[in-house]
Amino acid sequence: MRASRYLIATLKETPADAEIISHQLMLRAGMIRKLASGLYTWLPLGLRVLRKVERIVREEMDKSGAQEVLMPAIQPAELWQESGRWEQYGGELLRLNDRHGRDFCFGPTHEEVITDMIRNELKSYKELPANFYQIQTKFRDERRPRFGVMRAREFIMKDAYSFHIDKDSLDETYQVMHRTYCNIFDRLGLDYRPVQADSGAIGGSASHEFHVLASSGEDAIAFSTGGKYAANIEKAEAVAPAGERPAPSEDMKAVDTPNQRTIADIAAFLNVDATRTVKTLLVKGEADEEGKSSLVALILRGDHELNEIKAENLKGIAEPLTMATDEEIEAAVGCKAGSIGPVDISVPVIVDRSAAHLADFICGANKQDVHLTGVNWGRDVELGRVEDLRNIVEGDPSPEGDGHMEIKRGIEVGHIFKLGSKYSEAMNATVLDEHGKSAILEMGCYGIGVSRIVAAAIEQNHDERGILWPAAIAPFEVAVVTLNAHKSPTVMEAAEKLYDELRHAGLDVLLDDRNERPGVKFADMELVGIPHRIVVSDRGLGAGTLEYKGRSDADKQDIPVDEALPFLMKALSR
Amino acid sequence: MRASRYLIATLKETPADAEIISHQLMLRAGMIRKLASGLYTWLPLGLRVLRKVERIVREEMDKSGAQEVLMPAIQPAELWQESGRWEQYGGELLRLNDRHGRDFCFGPTHEEVITDMIRNELKSYKELPANFYQIQTKFRDERRPRFGVMRAREFIMKDAYSFHIDKDSLDETYQVMHRTYCNIFDRLGLDYRPVQADSGAIGGSASHEFHVLASSGEDAIAFSTGGKYAANIEKAEAVAPAGERPAPSEDMKAVDTPNQRTIADIAAFLNVDATRTVKTLLVKGEADEEGKSSLVALILRGDHELNEIKAENLKGIAEPLTMATDEEIEAAVGCKAGSIGPVDISVPVIVDRSAAHLADFICGANKQDVHLTGVNWGRDVELGRVEDLRNIVEGDPSPEGDGHMEIKRGIEVGHIFKLGSKYSEAMNATVLDEHGKSAILEMGCYGIGVSRIVAAAIEQNHDERGILWPAAIAPFEVAVVTLNAHKSPTVMEAAEKLYDELRHAGLDVLLDDRNERPGVKFADMELVGIPHRIVVSDRGLGAGTLEYKGRSDADKQDIPVDEALPFLMKALSR
Repeated sequence: MRASRYLIATLKETPADAEIISHQLMLRAGMIRKLASGLYTWLPLGLRVLRKVERIVREEMDKSGAQEVLMPAIQPAELWQESGRWEQYGGELLRLNDRHGRDFCFGPTHEEVITDMIRNELKSYKELPANFYQIQTKFRDERRPRFGVMRAREFIMKDAYSFHIDKDSLDETYQVMHRTYCNIFDRLGLDYRPVQADSGAIGGSASHEFHVLASSGEDAIAFSTGGKYAANIEKAEAVAPAGERPAPSEDMKAVDTPNQRTIADIAAFLNVDATRTVKTLLVKGEADEEGKSSLVALILRGDHELNEIKAENLKGIAEPLTMATDEEIEAAVGCKAGSIGPVDISVPVIVDRSAAHLADFICGANKQDVHLTGVNWGRDVELGRVEDLRNIVEGDPSPEGDGHMEIKRGIEVGHIFKLGSKYSEAMNATVLDEHGKSAILEMGCYGIGVSRIVAAAIEQNHDERGILWPAAIAPFEVAVVTLNAHKSPTVMEAAEKLYDELRHAGLDVLLDDRNERPGVKFADMELVGIPHRIVVSDRGLGAGTLEYKGRSDADKQDIPVDEALPFLMKALSR
Repeated sequence: MRASRYLIATLKETPADAEIISHQLMLRAGMIRKLASGLYTWLPLGLRVLRKVERIVREEMDKSGAQEVLMPAIQPAELWQESGRWEQYGGELLRLNDRHGRDFCFGPTHEEVITDMIRNELKSYKELPANFYQIQTKFRDERRPRFGVMRAREFIMKDAYSFHIDKDSLDETYQVMHRTYCNIFDRLGLDYRPVQADSGAIGGSASHEFHVLASSGEDAIAFSTGGKYAANIEKAEAVAPAGERPAPSEDMKAVDTPNQRTIADIAAFLNVDATRTVKTLLVKGEADEEGKSSLVALILRGDHELNEIKAENLKGIAEPLTMATDEEIEAAVGCKAGSIGPVDISVPVIVDRSAAHLADFICGANKQDVHLTGVNWGRDVELGRVEDLRNIVEGDPSPEGDGHMEIKRGIEVGHIFKLGSKYSEAMNATVLDEHGKSAILEMGCYGIGVSRIVAAAIEQNHDERGILWPAAIAPFEVAVVTLNAHKSPTVMEAAEKLYDELRHAGLDVLLDDRNERPGVKFADMELVGIPHRIVVSDRGLGAGTLEYKGRSDADKQDIPVDEALPFLMKALSR
């Protein structure tokens, strides 16, 4: 490609509304432009990257045995009503009417459509397992779209759906997809981690997320130092402290704690570490048959944080997790939130594993501005239900026993789920099993945020001058930059010759033949992030050399004109 | 690909609601499935064809120097209000609201979005010409979607938009796109014709359509036998008959024609050929300043048909063309439609070129159930405005003088337009010209119906057994069909070996290893339309041969096992 005939729409200024580095760099490098909130046009340079990501995803999905299909973006409401999601799905579902007033949505995902297709097409267990995927434009009407294509409303996703006669077959394909995802992210050249994840609203029994590691990531992900365990912090298990709970050594006493509301207040006031306190949170319980719900108390060690996902997944807790209001707390307990505690409380109690391990702890007395010290489970208050309620923290023991936990930030770019029979049951998707009986299908689903990967790759790979693309997804592999070519036919001729030579060897080359100052051209090529740069100049040619610089190199080097191709082939590991 | 692990969803019965052969065959061959009216899922086999079409379109567009971009499917109303199309575009524009109640549409085309992008990105004539394209899912909310993907609501289109400093540059790119389209349809292996076309509602000064010839085509297209002239019948010029108009030889007489209403009635009643009569049609004229419109009389030879597009493009005629009602006719002329004629009529008259060439003709007398015979222009009625008003018919002289006209049926699969400054003016898209002055851009736009091409190819290429794909877009080039492989390891082994050999040579092969009866497998491969079939059987292998049959061949032939690859390479012209 010749830059003189190509849209190199770089910007000097960082657009004001771009908060994160990938959004800033994609705008500055002329890869995307905003059309409206959460809607972006992919300019030629950006689209090249997107297509390279797409190609790698497609090739690896094909290798895995998955079959590519293409379902409509616009989906009829009837199918979503059948699965129950027409009502459940919130404002992110872009609902619309056609000219006849019929209800449709712009699909944010395709479980219903594929399940409908499969129940019509597949009749026998002999046709299973089968895995279908598509790479397609999807829409989620985010309340507050931001971060460019990282959290756009219209985006490109690879979604796959597998169908099985039983759970063993689903397990097998799930493992194949896990390996396929690793192959994809390996080929993309990204530093990523597969981690256990909560299955969330989409339902199902098991899931893993694939995260690109980047300090700007929205998710916290936890790893064991031994390498056996990795999970999203939403899901990561916080194990009970080792050993037996210490025996009581103090008597329980009430102390006045006027105006001390937070754990930090109490710890400072009583001059103890927060690890010796517990905090008590009141949340709504599951509604009873008459639709009424009472409150439930959650007890955590004072220095720990409630994990809301874990809490709302518990039996007896309302979903979504809903904190009790100040009025509800006072009505139920008789004091304000800062003074409640498990002793003699009038609502059911669930205790976190770490809180359950405390002896001689401090908690609210359920009396305004009074706390209890020296409290002990069993002696002063019954220890009933114990659950994993908290977020893990760095240094926690690994649930797999292999060392302790570390926490990093990640950007979710892939997610695989065992859906089980959630959709097949709701939509009656069956085949005949080997005994000729109708059997509900088991399903898996597997997503990759194709357009999001482009942004995630930048979050992970950039410096103060611009983007540092992994070679596999760089818009071009090599930039051949001419200096003063408009005045020097020798330079232009040598550059054209090199351009042809490299292209014919299969390299993806941008010839920067623009009539711009050298500084502008160098800055553009670095901003755009082309991994290898060759400069063709009169001075170099006079000495029979070209100037090479790798995008991350500190220094340039001269290479003989004839050795450019083998040099680059080696640099590109070809 | 192994058929045993691939969705071969062929149907024996022709689905009842599929009216045209391509729709029937795409359903029967398992290429598409209907999700809802005008919405189709592309199954794996169909998607392979679609992707091959896409690839050819992309490669040729890239070769032409066009740059690929990807614009959002969802477009903000503001841009359409700026161009004026938010109001003008009818029910086919799928309008919708996001969660904040803002107006958007699902783009049926992208003139507004690209013009907005260009006015922001391009500043100088030096950056021109530039041509941007995308291959993308579009939506037109057809009132009555039908014919499968031929006239679907959601469809895939290649749309391109070029930008120029002047008309000469637009002309140049227009010619490049014309050649590019010919290259595309040549490579697709389709019998097609570029024809002059009406520019229609999209606006602009010149346009050509590209039609795939097929007897089932919705459009009539006209060609000169000399090959110089080709046009959509909507546009094809009907030239005046050769020579001077004959001199009058009869006197004008009134004759009673009770209850004779149509031209056929009159011709039979008076025992003359319809070519000696004229018909008079009253249509609405353009509204005056007060919004009132009077009627206009259009005069055609009795055997000719009004061309509504030509009529509505004339100055003085209301757009869209609106026929006068019976009441309006009686009020204006004093008789019913069957008795009107040009002589002494009280409304302005426009005469078709052929009608203007008549002498001694017959027409209505503007008196109920009375006609005039022996009418002559100039003598009995003034011949004022003469225009081209009619559809051409086979045998008409060519407007280019090269023989006469023939008419065929075509399916429109491509359309190129000179838009001129319609959008750039409305949206103020300018650059600085060489004198540093702001200049409105000239624009061209260029569409190809990517998904429609798949259906059009089938309309043109099928027989009673199924589809006859052109090699370039067949889902697979070769089918290797095993006979009784489940009982014969020899057959399976030989088939696997051949499959590997052909694939490694770069052929696109489907190994039909399904445990089905030979008849079922042969019928499926013919229905699906795979161009070349090799059968591997115990009997053949015993004699050292494989059985070959081309999809259109009458007979099979045996080829030695070792010669299969060179034989197929030759058959595929590789």
